[in-house]
Amino acid sequence: MKIKYPSPHKNITNEKNKNSAARGMLFELELNKSNEYYININKALIYKKPTPIRIVKVDYPNRSHAKIVEAYYQTPSTTDYNGVYRGKYIDYEAKETQNLSFAFDHIFPHQIEHLRKVDQHGGIAFVIIFFRRVNKIYLIDIKDFYKAYIAGKNGEKHSIKYTDVEDLGGIEVTIGYSPVIDYLKQVDLKYFSDN
Amino acid sequence: MKIKYPSPHKNITNEKNKNSAARGMLFELELNKSNEYYININKALIYKKPTPIRIVKVDYPNRSHAKIVEAYYQTPSTTDYNGVYRGKYIDYEAKETQNLSFAFDHIFPHQIEHLRKVDQHGGIAFVIIFFRRVNKIYLIDIKDFYKAYIAGKNGEKHSIKYTDVEDLGGIEVTIGYSPVIDYLKQVDLKYFSDN
Repeated sequence: MKIKYPSPHKNITNEKNKNSAARGMLFELELNKSNEYYININKALIYKKPTPIRIVKVDYPNRSHAKIVEAYYQTPSTTDYNGVYRGKYIDYEAKETQNLSFAFDHIFPHQIEHLRKVDQHGGIAFVIIFFRRVNKIYLIDIKDFYKAYIAGKNGEKHSIKYTDVEDLGGIEVTIGYSPVIDYLKQVDLKYFSDN
Repeated sequence: MKIKYPSPHKNITNEKNKNSAARGMLFELELNKSNEYYININKALIYKKPTPIRIVKVDYPNRSHAKIVEAYYQTPSTTDYNGVYRGKYIDYEAKETQNLSFAFDHIFPHQIEHLRKVDQHGGIAFVIIFFRRVNKIYLIDIKDFYKAYIAGKNGEKHSIKYTDVEDLGGIEVTIGYSPVIDYLKQVDLKYFSDN
């Protein structure tokens, strides 16, 4: 079942790229599997938060079981993933795009603010973006992401091209085998290499 | 609307104490308000996780809006609350009881395991319990809680009396005004007083 909750931008699928939509991996699913792998080998405890649902009506077909019969997807107040790694709080938003650049209207402003606050509180905060068309994943620290975002707001650019991510300070997450998205390697590089 | 999801123990309300059930504060609500307060004064970023819902059927009355018409509450895989405080990962489960002791079957074993793992990964992990009848709140570090839990499993006791919590290493969280449950004071005492 495909979850369809209020998105900051509706037309995530670009018509031109519809054929490539089925290609490649299911990003979120693979990310969840990578996190499960990390939990299993006791490397990190990172979970996807449940999608917030506003419940309007519940039936009780029998005493012990509640059946929700009217509910709506809500806008998440924070980000998709959080947890603990190497004693540090870690928090990130995962995004994917069919295009060669990631448009800033694909992420909620309050999620960017949340990630900035996490950084200010001493946590690890980033955005991880899958550019499906070129099969590339990048991890971008929230400070770097925010610089590009603010520049975009000031009229320069409203998106980040995948070819510009590394210039902004982002790092490519190579796609591997087990786990498929071994992004904690890039977290080590970015946040722990001085220690 | 009252959320009613599968509980590890159904009869949370003791018949004898039904009259006192309406007395006092709404624990979870007050805890959420205290966390909002902390976010507003930029002291900590701690959020309640959404209740996980298994969605079975979604209707689209119009193109832009999804209406969930069949769904069920799921057992949470982790705990209620997590976030970042003073650079550290913080994770806890909030419980309340009508009784003078907290029965261990009111918490899921996998939640206890999760909190133990958080502790092993260098995070702050505890259980916060509201004993409604005596209007007392205690914070119990997971290591202390686990000792009592294991002793209970070995047949000694299947619950923690509120009068025994401090002997186990728990600390009372005094109920105040703004915020009502200023439990980060006790977190400071328990986890940061050596620094």
